Amino acid sequence: MKGGIRLVEGGVCAAKGFRAAGVPARIKYEGRRDVALIVADAPCAAAAVFTTNAVAAAPVVYDRAAVKGGRIQAILANSGCANACTGEAGRRDAERSAIETARTLGIDPGLVLVASTGVIGHRLPMDRLLDGMRCAAAALAASPEAALDANRAVMTTDTKPKQAAAQVRIGGRTVTVGGMCKGSGMIEPNMATMLGFITTDAAISPTMLRRALRRAIAVSFNHVVVDGDESTNDSVFLLASGVAGNARISAPGRDMDLFTEALTAVGVALAKQMAADGEGATKFVSVTVKGARTPRDAERAARAIAKSPLAKTSWFGKDPNWGRVLAAAGYSGAAVDDRRAEVFYGRTWAYRKGRVADAAQLEWLARELEGPELSVTVDLHLGEHSATIYTCDLSLDYVHINADYTT
Amino acid sequence: MKGGIRLVEGGVCAAKGFRAAGVPARIKYEGRRDVALIVADAPCAAAAVFTTNAVAAAPVVYDRAAVKGGRIQAILANSGCANACTGEAGRRDAERSAIETARTLGIDPGLVLVASTGVIGHRLPMDRLLDGMRCAAAALAASPEAALDANRAVMTTDTKPKQAAAQVRIGGRTVTVGGMCKGSGMIEPNMATMLGFITTDAAISPTMLRRALRRAIAVSFNHVVVDGDESTNDSVFLLASGVAGNARISAPGRDMDLFTEALTAVGVALAKQMAADGEGATKFVSVTVKGARTPRDAERAARAIAKSPLAKTSWFGKDPNWGRVLAAAGYSGAAVDDRRAEVFYGRTWAYRKGRVADAAQLEWLARELEGPELSVTVDLHLGEHSATIYTCDLSLDYVHINADYTT
Repeated sequence: MKGGIRLVEGGVCAAKGFRAAGVPARIKYEGRRDVALIVADAPCAAAAVFTTNAVAAAPVVYDRAAVKGGRIQAILANSGCANACTGEAGRRDAERSAIETARTLGIDPGLVLVASTGVIGHRLPMDRLLDGMRCAAAALAASPEAALDANRAVMTTDTKPKQAAAQVRIGGRTVTVGGMCKGSGMIEPNMATMLGFITTDAAISPTMLRRALRRAIAVSFNHVVVDGDESTNDSVFLLASGVAGNARISAPGRDMDLFTEALTAVGVALAKQMAADGEGATKFVSVTVKGARTPRDAERAARAIAKSPLAKTSWFGKDPNWGRVLAAAGYSGAAVDDRRAEVFYGRTWAYRKGRVADAAQLEWLARELEGPELSVTVDLHLGEHSATIYTCDLSLDYVHINADYTT
Repeated sequence: MKGGIRLVEGGVCAAKGFRAAGVPARIKYEGRRDVALIVADAPCAAAAVFTTNAVAAAPVVYDRAAVKGGRIQAILANSGCANACTGEAGRRDAERSAIETARTLGIDPGLVLVASTGVIGHRLPMDRLLDGMRCAAAALAASPEAALDANRAVMTTDTKPKQAAAQVRIGGRTVTVGGMCKGSGMIEPNMATMLGFITTDAAISPTMLRRALRRAIAVSFNHVVVDGDESTNDSVFLLASGVAGNARISAPGRDMDLFTEALTAVGVALAKQMAADGEGATKFVSVTVKGARTPRDAERAARAIAKSPLAKTSWFGKDPNWGRVLAAAGYSGAAVDDRRAEVFYGRTWAYRKGRVADAAQLEWLARELEGPELSVTVDLHLGEHSATIYTCDLSLDYVHINADYTT
């Protein structure tokens, strides 16, 4: 990988200085891990990005204030209940769970963040949550198994855990970035029901850490689209322990660029896993728009295609319906001229400047649409700019899952 | 109805001065009406509104120029082929079909518009289309049956024809407005695969006609959402024969308002039929957002809810999942405060300023979600403004239809 970035095994315990745990606490279901704890050996430089939804869940409201100081040591997370639309009472629940976590860990309450995912509109079962938090605190470990347990504890409709880690040499030291996330439904740009937890042992200032996170998210988490819905709880957390021993990154430069690249590699790896695990997905689809007049045109055209129910159902149906793809680009607001545009499935063209695939071509296209991975590319031939969005198809199971999931 | 508007039976032949026909011409399928002709006894004042999709189909490109003159006498329409993304050849096909229609009817080619709907990327089968046009010309009649035949000929995945008509007294004369439309998939604001044909015997200037059409569409056709996709072909045509004998409407005033009201009544009746016939729809859903800070907030919140796959699948699942409804309002960009907002299904509240429906309430809600019609209302309690969007649920059949519909 470029910049000497190396993807490695592991999640939130890949970087030095972090322990994790995930335990069952009956938040919503019996015998399912639903409370996770991520704890650093000492206070960390911290950054976070949250949902842009005007209806922000209580934990998001709490964390926005708590993370401002730029130093965090622990994150308590639960699935099964989103603690959203729960009014003032919900906000008090979020604050109390942070305070109780701090007391259990023997640290300052200001060093704890909280995250919730699950059903909207229900109060947190505080007794169960706090009992679970205490069990998790007792189970904390720096092992890959502990990281995986924590990952499992934040899953909702996810069918599999999602972890990624990368290493890079910075100033002669090996810096590790590792993370985990949950998210499969209701996913859209700007953090929709998606929780990301990333840890690193890099030594870096909170300011540089915030900047690196924003840059990484812009091309990873924010480029995942499943159904275009955006949630009330989404958050991505990044903690840096500094124990890698590199010269502290406190200004732009080569070290900052290397760190941001490693962070981006982890973010993209997690983003692809979320898209591939989209609710009911039978296909991971990467949509690339190139030859756009502006960067904004490239992104909104790719986004419109990735969100189009008609395009998504055609991928599910293995139908090279390039007309729907081009039509979506057309209504995205991007400059599009169908007499110049080309549409490719994999490396096979379906539409080329007014020319349409013939029978022979359609056979090749059918093959491109067979597998579990599909790349759809639209070349607008109007400029230099391109963008890629990670998404999936829209299947019968998506409707099953979301028609049956009860409030 | 207000303003003395009376809804009556009929479609494009309800108003005086128009004949129609719909015939089978094997454009795509055997034995199915697929070519329609609407012809006025004399040149009419005309107005039209077209898709905003940058990828505009050939007939749209042709009509935009042709309708500028404000006088039209005939419209040729076909289903089975959209004549979109067909390059220069497709544009020549559109022009030629207008010229041939004019020759057959013995009128000026500049008085003919053309409309197509169906699969994107295929050339029109010109011989079949023109043969069909000639058969239709021979079959023209001013009867309700003829109007219905024309309606059937423009249907694609529509399960039923869609007609509406209204009458209003203007200056002591009875003015009739009647129309038909097609559209069930790929429907979104700004005219997505949706064709509307409206005729009236009102005497009115092209300028006033254009203004009335824009005003009527803003609250009818443009308030229909099925899947959020927007097509390349959508058009709404309005022809005014003038034979009602009212004093010609050539300026704003009471007559103009009455006419616009009647036109709007027809537009809304057609819009509701399209939403109710959304692909795979099991429910007609009207989404109303009130108490919004601005008109724009009301509309974008209602639109976001109507487009949300998670909200739509919950309606299909008869699940009063108000959290998804409120979350959609939250990411719409509209000002929303979940501590003040309320969500109603029918007349029953599900969420009220932080309070959540209890078991007893949920039973009432379940009943509201049983029927084929559902009204979802969000009161933001932040202002005076409201908007209603007509839509439907997202069902398993939507995916079936669109996964199997072949290019």
